Amino acid sequence: MADIIIRNAYILTMDPEKGDIQNGVIVIDNGLIREVAENTEATARKEIDGHGCVAMPGLVNTHCHIGMTLFRGYADDLPLKVWLEERIWPAESQTTEDDIYRGSLLGCLEMIRSGTTAFADMYFHMNRTAQAVEESGLRAALSYGMIDFGDTAKADAELQEGIRFCRDWNGRGDGRITTMYGPHAPNTCSREFLLKVKAQAKKDELACHIHILETQGERDAMTAEHGESSVKYLNRLGFLDRDVLAAHCVWVNEEEIRILADSGVHVSHNPVSNMKLASGIAPVAKMLAEGVRVSLGTDGCASNNNLDMFEEMKTAALLQKVSMKDPSVLSARQVLEMGTINGAKALGLNSGILKAGFNADLILIDMKQAHLTPVFDVPSHLVYSAVGRDVRTTIVNGTVLMENGNIVGLDEEQILRSMEEHAKGLHFQS
Amino acid sequence: MADIIIRNAYILTMDPEKGDIQNGVIVIDNGLIREVAENTEATARKEIDGHGCVAMPGLVNTHCHIGMTLFRGYADDLPLKVWLEERIWPAESQTTEDDIYRGSLLGCLEMIRSGTTAFADMYFHMNRTAQAVEESGLRAALSYGMIDFGDTAKADAELQEGIRFCRDWNGRGDGRITTMYGPHAPNTCSREFLLKVKAQAKKDELACHIHILETQGERDAMTAEHGESSVKYLNRLGFLDRDVLAAHCVWVNEEEIRILADSGVHVSHNPVSNMKLASGIAPVAKMLAEGVRVSLGTDGCASNNNLDMFEEMKTAALLQKVSMKDPSVLSARQVLEMGTINGAKALGLNSGILKAGFNADLILIDMKQAHLTPVFDVPSHLVYSAVGRDVRTTIVNGTVLMENGNIVGLDEEQILRSMEEHAKGLHFQS
Repeated sequence: MADIIIRNAYILTMDPEKGDIQNGVIVIDNGLIREVAENTEATARKEIDGHGCVAMPGLVNTHCHIGMTLFRGYADDLPLKVWLEERIWPAESQTTEDDIYRGSLLGCLEMIRSGTTAFADMYFHMNRTAQAVEESGLRAALSYGMIDFGDTAKADAELQEGIRFCRDWNGRGDGRITTMYGPHAPNTCSREFLLKVKAQAKKDELACHIHILETQGERDAMTAEHGESSVKYLNRLGFLDRDVLAAHCVWVNEEEIRILADSGVHVSHNPVSNMKLASGIAPVAKMLAEGVRVSLGTDGCASNNNLDMFEEMKTAALLQKVSMKDPSVLSARQVLEMGTINGAKALGLNSGILKAGFNADLILIDMKQAHLTPVFDVPSHLVYSAVGRDVRTTIVNGTVLMENGNIVGLDEEQILRSMEEHAKGLHFQS
Repeated sequence: MADIIIRNAYILTMDPEKGDIQNGVIVIDNGLIREVAENTEATARKEIDGHGCVAMPGLVNTHCHIGMTLFRGYADDLPLKVWLEERIWPAESQTTEDDIYRGSLLGCLEMIRSGTTAFADMYFHMNRTAQAVEESGLRAALSYGMIDFGDTAKADAELQEGIRFCRDWNGRGDGRITTMYGPHAPNTCSREFLLKVKAQAKKDELACHIHILETQGERDAMTAEHGESSVKYLNRLGFLDRDVLAAHCVWVNEEEIRILADSGVHVSHNPVSNMKLASGIAPVAKMLAEGVRVSLGTDGCASNNNLDMFEEMKTAALLQKVSMKDPSVLSARQVLEMGTINGAKALGLNSGILKAGFNADLILIDMKQAHLTPVFDVPSHLVYSAVGRDVRTTIVNGTVLMENGNIVGLDEEQILRSMEEHAKGLHFQS
């Protein structure tokens, strides 16, 4: 007897061999998908009626700072320098471990509600983020964000903290938590430090999560200091390969796009944050055309200000269309691939497709709503009409985390109330 | 005794003299707001508890083709010419009056659910759209879209239909329905026709709703034919004044921006549609700086693909920030003004502010949710974190159209089911 059978749903498998199933069943057992078909002989301890719903792989958010959910709406509409130096950095410097735990738990709750089943994160006090992920039931690839600014003593301390975090948490939560090394960016980490981190990551067989070329400022600074921009520089250091998750890549030129493609780097595109901070428009259509593996991320709540991957998918499609002056670039299907399969690959997960043997990480979207009626094309609705709030049911690792809009494992009311109380006491000095 | 009192809500009045009220009351009587205050002596037949909610003026969507809600997701990701000529036009040519009624009713339902209380619309079979608006309880400024393509007989017939529609419907639905003349665009209507329409509109004391410079193609064609682009051309014809609602204005140059400001034209900015069709990026920050009255619209569902004005507000802010390379342009407050007061002015409505004497067109947004927690700044959350689905209660003209997520006046289930059934039978020949 299996654990769960979902019946009567339209199944968007994201499996190119199988295609969609108009009305099918998904059998889940022991954390994995056992069967995806028109019908089944199997029986299960629990049945979920997917009538009126689309079942699809859970969305994978490949770049987040989930602790920052604490700072949602704390600073907006400011020049980047003022936002960062006068608001975010001072607030972060006064942020406690407990703040990060609360912010992370709130972020996990929002992800479960909006259909994200796995995410990649880089921040500090990561043991408390990991604790929140463990409790929430989500899947995550977590990294402690390391910066040395060329200070050797700091570099050593940061790497030790990174190693400790990876050793403590990799594989925890029944394998839902994996870890990565998180050197912050090529312009905030020294060459020596980047080399040490890469060597450690190879030794531990772990990937690296890094910001690359989010701003034109980084491009200018790197070119001035090293005579070449970040991607060329990192490639020459031997840093770039399939075990690198690079956030943003807004200011890459054509030569750098080819390097990203050839080295197999996973790029996390964060259009909402890039627009809100006026960082620029990443050449995603060109990257995809050159074979770069591009997925999607929300970035932190201080620059978004939510964690809604449905919004991220729509914004990604729209921004490429208008910037390329071509409404046919980034089709709904392509964007769904970025939000599911590509994201799962970027995190090294056996997820992102509804297929036997894959992780049972999936969501049901309630299609019986005015803004999703009528239905001519399901992928179109998921990308261009739906929002995270349309998700009804979220399952991760075969465990139901939300059913029919009700959160199962977490005490939602208590999380919201305690965060609201807690935020009243936050008086960040700038 | 008043009709309704709303208590315990955070009130975003949008009234610059009054500012926000942290915890206040709104007294509604006879379709109007009677009082907005910290407290009241008044009593009412109905009390609404706004605890945990923000009360704000309903959003005003200043450019829509609501009948096209029928075509949601029918054609996406196509080059503009293919989308229009091979998909939308053939579908429209086979669209019946009944289709338009169903599409409009569905669109009204979506607007009520997502917090839009008034909209401007231009399309065909408008008597059926007006019927849907009358039944829905929404407020709307409707126009029959007229095109002559230089054909004199067609011009006369179109104008007669426009006159008939205005005479039949202006002031209907207890004054909730007003009418405008709808000459489609300066490149689809002849000079003579535009002059005749303008004269008729002046005679009837009605405004005109027109598309201006949505595409670079219009700019090029107008310049080739008339030696000047659309805004200069229309200004020379004496067409432009405060009684003009101009949709899009994407391709206006600096001289044209000054003409729009000086003539008092109301511009409807439609960022989602402009991005999805790759039309371009309207210079909204420049227009606002020059004093142009800019409001927001969703455009039709064939190019959006929803009618969510919260999404439109966020997209408007983000698109200006990234295109101007300045994260401080279009603040959350400014965007809220565009979505409320500016929209109301564009439609000639006494709405858009919560203040005694104004129309009781307002909404309550449920803030007790993960993606709206914690709250540092209410306007930030409304623009950058919320979605239309967060609206709990919608009131138009003092009548409750949705309360606590339940639609009051319309049979939602029947509308959705009948539209879904109806769409199955639609096989548009292209």
